Amino acid sequence: MESGMQTLRVGILGFGTVGRGVARMLRDQADILQQRAGVALQLTAIATRTPGRDRGIPLDGVTLTDDAARVTAGDDVDVVCELIGGLDPAESLVRDALGNGKHVVTANKALIAERGNGLIELAAANNCELLFEASTAGAIPIIKALRESLAGNRINRIQGILNGTCNYILTEMREKGLPYEQVLAEAQRLGYAEADPTFDVGGFDAAHKLTILAAIGFGIPLSYDKIQVEGIAEISDVDIAWATEMGYRIKLLGIANRVDGEVELRVQPTLVAANSMLGAVEGVFNAVRVEGDFSGPTLYYGRGAGEEPTASAVVADLVDIARNIKSGGAAGRTPLLGAPLADLSAPVFRSPGEHFGAYYLRLSVIDKPGVLADITALLKKHDISIDALVQRGRSPNEAVPLVMVTHEAREAQMLACLAEIEQLPLVESKAHMIRIEEDAA
Amino acid sequence: MESGMQTLRVGILGFGTVGRGVARMLRDQADILQQRAGVALQLTAIATRTPGRDRGIPLDGVTLTDDAARVTAGDDVDVVCELIGGLDPAESLVRDALGNGKHVVTANKALIAERGNGLIELAAANNCELLFEASTAGAIPIIKALRESLAGNRINRIQGILNGTCNYILTEMREKGLPYEQVLAEAQRLGYAEADPTFDVGGFDAAHKLTILAAIGFGIPLSYDKIQVEGIAEISDVDIAWATEMGYRIKLLGIANRVDGEVELRVQPTLVAANSMLGAVEGVFNAVRVEGDFSGPTLYYGRGAGEEPTASAVVADLVDIARNIKSGGAAGRTPLLGAPLADLSAPVFRSPGEHFGAYYLRLSVIDKPGVLADITALLKKHDISIDALVQRGRSPNEAVPLVMVTHEAREAQMLACLAEIEQLPLVESKAHMIRIEEDAA
Repeated sequence: MESGMQTLRVGILGFGTVGRGVARMLRDQADILQQRAGVALQLTAIATRTPGRDRGIPLDGVTLTDDAARVTAGDDVDVVCELIGGLDPAESLVRDALGNGKHVVTANKALIAERGNGLIELAAANNCELLFEASTAGAIPIIKALRESLAGNRINRIQGILNGTCNYILTEMREKGLPYEQVLAEAQRLGYAEADPTFDVGGFDAAHKLTILAAIGFGIPLSYDKIQVEGIAEISDVDIAWATEMGYRIKLLGIANRVDGEVELRVQPTLVAANSMLGAVEGVFNAVRVEGDFSGPTLYYGRGAGEEPTASAVVADLVDIARNIKSGGAAGRTPLLGAPLADLSAPVFRSPGEHFGAYYLRLSVIDKPGVLADITALLKKHDISIDALVQRGRSPNEAVPLVMVTHEAREAQMLACLAEIEQLPLVESKAHMIRIEEDAA
Repeated sequence: MESGMQTLRVGILGFGTVGRGVARMLRDQADILQQRAGVALQLTAIATRTPGRDRGIPLDGVTLTDDAARVTAGDDVDVVCELIGGLDPAESLVRDALGNGKHVVTANKALIAERGNGLIELAAANNCELLFEASTAGAIPIIKALRESLAGNRINRIQGILNGTCNYILTEMREKGLPYEQVLAEAQRLGYAEADPTFDVGGFDAAHKLTILAAIGFGIPLSYDKIQVEGIAEISDVDIAWATEMGYRIKLLGIANRVDGEVELRVQPTLVAANSMLGAVEGVFNAVRVEGDFSGPTLYYGRGAGEEPTASAVVADLVDIARNIKSGGAAGRTPLLGAPLADLSAPVFRSPGEHFGAYYLRLSVIDKPGVLADITALLKKHDISIDALVQRGRSPNEAVPLVMVTHEAREAQMLACLAEIEQLPLVESKAHMIRIEEDAA
């Protein structure tokens, strides 16, 4: 589309849930989109492996094909929406589209997190946009907030509830008092969790999203391989009950911290105050909290997945492209990672042991006299002070859970102490540690 | 500034709290602003009534003047930041600046809410931007979210905690169990409330902001005079205690609803669930919840006022202008009220009596046998059913508070019923009614 033209022609790769949502939105909202974007957004072509299948929506005038090149090279396509997901063939198709001078909008977090640095370079070289609001936190406009609304701020911390499956599981465990396995099975039955849930419950999906947020917020290259990832499979109903009793919620957080010029990137279960904004985020919802040096804390909340919320974000990117072209602006108006690629520099990543904070600890100990004395002596030796300690249940000479909350300490110190505690004869199994974020207001 | 130029020259009108914040931000963040905007943002001139006063920040190379025209017509000014506040002379100065071809960024909610329709037209006629992210909810990027990120959605409801002073007072009343007057006095002492607090506690400040949000969200002209405004001065500690007991929080909400093609605009104290996201917003913080038809509910949270948060929003608008010019885009890329002025049409405003919802009621009644029977008979006559009823305290033949929560009913019906209840011999004083928003999840 050239400036002065009246239609932005959209092609879609992949006709699953999100593709269907985008097709529906372009059709159902055509009037307001034309009004707000200043040009019509016209769906011209869809590539899918099953072009013959009926999706239950009218597609008059839309070419359905199983040939992706028909979209990535189509004369009737100005913008390609990559809604296939995964790394391959998504990457090569996006490269084809950019190479053909098509703008690209994608909902693909894996692709951006793992291959984004090269793709962004390619987009710039071809004077094309490569927008990915839908890749992170669904309908929540967190990419635009970081890239544009907070552009005058140095971002010091990002904390996100970035995976709806995990948040749903943790919420259900608390509300219904059920164990992890049972809630996971129910989530699978309801379609909130995949048959193989590893990608979600293992924290990898959240890590993809955190990669993207950290890059834009901190002005660093996409650094997926630098994230320490821990999932929620080890969270027990004992942890949930105890955290609740103490006024906490357990959330799987993606955390990007800037400390003393170093960057820390983690995905992990975290205790946050129940009466904090992040603590109030329940069920499948996502939220991202961002601390800017001038803005102070801001938080963004909404649905992180699903046909319609994801389509809302994809279409917002299409409107952005349409408005830019309509106003005669060159592509690349807004640097895709907040700052120009040439200005991004890899930071020093902070050693995990350097983290300074409070910890929740759960041990399995034999209920015998002396066990507490042995443990507290080791904590004292490592200079770690205890905020609270509770032995749950009473069962002489049997294993019972012992739960503790510490004051702030260096993580390396804490781990060294736990390694010694685990060697005590009355301590069974490995210690389970969850970090506490005290300031998640 | 022309495309290809390397500096966006900024003039400021008004050197109070916000003006100081913007000046500091342009200086302290100069490096990241240049990197992210693609051009330098250079503060060239400030007009203030007291140009000689020392503000404690270095202003080398900045012209300080008491002549506003030096800024609105300055050869060294590309963008004018109007940070004076109020209607006059702010309006005429903004008109001067636009007339001189300067872009304008303003933090002035009263100006946009009450005079914005004409100013937006003038900006368009002069091919200038007139951005006002800072006018509503401080650092929270709610204007951009509505205008850009949710552009593909029909917005059906906006609910905002838009006045930090009111939210601070209501939070303190609950947390400390103190009466309104005492908390207000403390807020005045701390500088959170003005000596004459009417503008905040009367709901007028929130109404200005709701005007702006409703216009952009619904695609209607700015309609300040259509808002029904009720403040918080009538909220008693009895209300707060009772709401808390029932699992609610009382918040001053700005509410824009679209119902059956009609639009309802209200600012009023409202009961929301304590465990909802809006219910979790405490102290001076603001939040806006928006329901789009595809996005579902989204919520935006942060500091609604203050030197640095407001400056963050002003500077984001400056970066937007800089990026647009740098990329060669014409002004007016994004319609200021979401859709082009010509497409905005005044809606039918819904009659307040048509509201259908649940209500919290507080009466002062004489503690004598029969009073409850009389009241419940009238509720039955008007087909209003009671969810809960509590007489607080016991004091035979004296006045005591009677508190009720109803099920859903038409507001006109509720008010007719209350008018009859108020005529009962054992009922003293006027009934106090607070609406309940059940779905503020």
